[in-house]
Amino acid sequence: MTDIQAPDQTTGFTVGTRLENGLGRTGTIHTPHGEIQTPAFIAVGTKATVKAVLPETVAELGAQAVLANAYHLFLQPGSDIVDEAGGLGAFMNWPGPTFTDSGGFQVLSLGAGFKKVLAMNSSTVRADDVIAEGKTRLAHVDEDGVTFKSHLDGSRHRFTPEVSMQIQHQLGADIIFAFDECTTLMNTREYQERSVERTQRWAVRCVDEHTRLTAERTHRPYQMLFGVVQGAQYEDLRRQAARDLAALGFDGFGIGGALEKDVLGTIVRWVNEELPEDKPRHLLGIGEPDDIFTAVENGVDTFDCVSPSRVARNGAIYSENGRFNVASATNRRDFGPLTQDCACYTCTHYSKAYLHHLLKAKEMLASTLATIHNEHFIVNLVDRVRASIVDGTFAEFREDFLGRYYPHR
Amino acid sequence: MTDIQAPDQTTGFTVGTRLENGLGRTGTIHTPHGEIQTPAFIAVGTKATVKAVLPETVAELGAQAVLANAYHLFLQPGSDIVDEAGGLGAFMNWPGPTFTDSGGFQVLSLGAGFKKVLAMNSSTVRADDVIAEGKTRLAHVDEDGVTFKSHLDGSRHRFTPEVSMQIQHQLGADIIFAFDECTTLMNTREYQERSVERTQRWAVRCVDEHTRLTAERTHRPYQMLFGVVQGAQYEDLRRQAARDLAALGFDGFGIGGALEKDVLGTIVRWVNEELPEDKPRHLLGIGEPDDIFTAVENGVDTFDCVSPSRVARNGAIYSENGRFNVASATNRRDFGPLTQDCACYTCTHYSKAYLHHLLKAKEMLASTLATIHNEHFIVNLVDRVRASIVDGTFAEFREDFLGRYYPHR
Repeated sequence: MTDIQAPDQTTGFTVGTRLENGLGRTGTIHTPHGEIQTPAFIAVGTKATVKAVLPETVAELGAQAVLANAYHLFLQPGSDIVDEAGGLGAFMNWPGPTFTDSGGFQVLSLGAGFKKVLAMNSSTVRADDVIAEGKTRLAHVDEDGVTFKSHLDGSRHRFTPEVSMQIQHQLGADIIFAFDECTTLMNTREYQERSVERTQRWAVRCVDEHTRLTAERTHRPYQMLFGVVQGAQYEDLRRQAARDLAALGFDGFGIGGALEKDVLGTIVRWVNEELPEDKPRHLLGIGEPDDIFTAVENGVDTFDCVSPSRVARNGAIYSENGRFNVASATNRRDFGPLTQDCACYTCTHYSKAYLHHLLKAKEMLASTLATIHNEHFIVNLVDRVRASIVDGTFAEFREDFLGRYYPHR
Repeated sequence: MTDIQAPDQTTGFTVGTRLENGLGRTGTIHTPHGEIQTPAFIAVGTKATVKAVLPETVAELGAQAVLANAYHLFLQPGSDIVDEAGGLGAFMNWPGPTFTDSGGFQVLSLGAGFKKVLAMNSSTVRADDVIAEGKTRLAHVDEDGVTFKSHLDGSRHRFTPEVSMQIQHQLGADIIFAFDECTTLMNTREYQERSVERTQRWAVRCVDEHTRLTAERTHRPYQMLFGVVQGAQYEDLRRQAARDLAALGFDGFGIGGALEKDVLGTIVRWVNEELPEDKPRHLLGIGEPDDIFTAVENGVDTFDCVSPSRVARNGAIYSENGRFNVASATNRRDFGPLTQDCACYTCTHYSKAYLHHLLKAKEMLASTLATIHNEHFIVNLVDRVRASIVDGTFAEFREDFLGRYYPHR
């Protein structure tokens, strides 16, 4: 096992301003495709497209980077095709920084059957069989990796740490993640312990394979490898996992696993108290406004979340006063913008009445315009959080914003 | 009944270059929202959006004007709402020229039941009951207008010439169409005669109502009213209809009704030999490349057709060598553009392999990118037709283009 040696000096992380209270900070992630000013919200483009929006529009709404998914792109179109296209950014016409998630979460959660199991009473499910359905195991975790069935066609596949690294090197994103086992809050303490240990062994294998591939694929810019901290709701497991991964010299870290909203800050704090300060930290799959403040305060630099675009496609619109649905009848003849004082393309060119019409008429442009607004809202919120850290007004901004966004709390 | 008096001198039509052989010509339609250089392909935005594409992109791909539909917008969101929004262009953020179709075709073809009747053997259908289904008439034509059921919710509505004018004045497009009865090739000669006479009486009523509304609604720019020439496949009916409508002083003319491909040119010629040369002529719902050449040669100035965007959403791509489907497996790892030497945004930024992926992944961006290409292709083809008339190379261009587009004819 060797420590990661980044051959390209353009990659790395520099810390900017620190919060007086808490672990929060601003910073800059340097990638071969540009810088990311942190804290930053990373737009999700699971299948190499931010759904319903052209990449130029993604840039225009303020997103600095896009995160795609190794599992989805492995199945369709195939990571070899993305590689031949020149990598994720070239394939999807996104010249800026890119991330890929390792597929660890998806092979378990999207492998056919997982959702049904999640809905079962946990007492009826043995810990090691958490990913089984009836007599047919649809995803099976062993020491070496995970065997799973495609949610698209039921075909069988196997991901190991090495396979995940090979896929992510083919995809060619600037920031890639180690292959980890995703557990749920249903698993026993005993299972979580064994899982964290296994994720650590997989991390070692990821670093080795990444180092090998980096030496081999010199025609491509260096990809930063982030280790993923698991450990569920257990402080000792989370801290130990963070320390063990830190020792492997990763370029940065992801914080993964099932995180209940009311302990999000606490768990993130445990992890970030252990992680090296000079490496960026990404919180996987989190993006509601209150969660963003909590995560930033506790030392998270970047986030991704499908929520802003997913709810947009159903007409749910983020505003400074919380979410509302533009498809509701009250907006039928409201000729004002979605939200007052919003600088996004949608708010500066269209009315609520038009969005309401497009939704009722089931027109695709409804998804496009609502996604632009919501992604802009969240990206811009994190931009304002960043500015408030620099200004020393983080606490006031949080109180002011959350008081308006969640007025009934 | 009074002749139409356009109070706004910015509207009208000027003829440019004429074809040496045939009725074709270039020209300019002057509207309050800009000029349309003709021949021109008008992009279809039925429900106040060109499906899947932002209006800025519609302009960028070269479209000069957009055509929406009075029937669809009357049902959803309601023409009163579009009026309150400032009219169609303001509502949908399209600053250029706009058209609305009268709804005459749609009340009959989309009124629930029509498609089933169309599929029936014509010998079993009495001419006057052509729009009936079983015992329940779903759309009923009488001397005064058409009663129909919404295809959305089955609610009953009634369009008359006056109602269509009122709706189209609320929608506020620059060019609007008289309310006509749409017949099919199934109808008897006797029915076609009576129908053409009725459409003529409706045209008179449209002109009267348009004149009244124009005098009343002085806060809005003048809307040009086009009469619609029907008459099916009968030369005498088509010529008579054209002459009769011409006598009413319309600002321009639409050519409507069922037109079989092999007699398209002949029928259009009959009509345009009768219509005044100094008024623009729009061919409703036609847009395949060979039809475009035929129509232009016989004196048509503008067209609209849903085909380029509709087939795009299924992956069918227009090219100089005919249509192909980018979803076919041969394009899976083709990293070239959809078509060589195409200047559209899609071809200059994306590969066939990426479009293939988006289609397989059922991503909305597939529709967006394929629509951009196809609309650009058709708009650009008509632009080249226009240039060939000016250059005196129309016949050569037609032969060259159609020889490549339909190589097996």
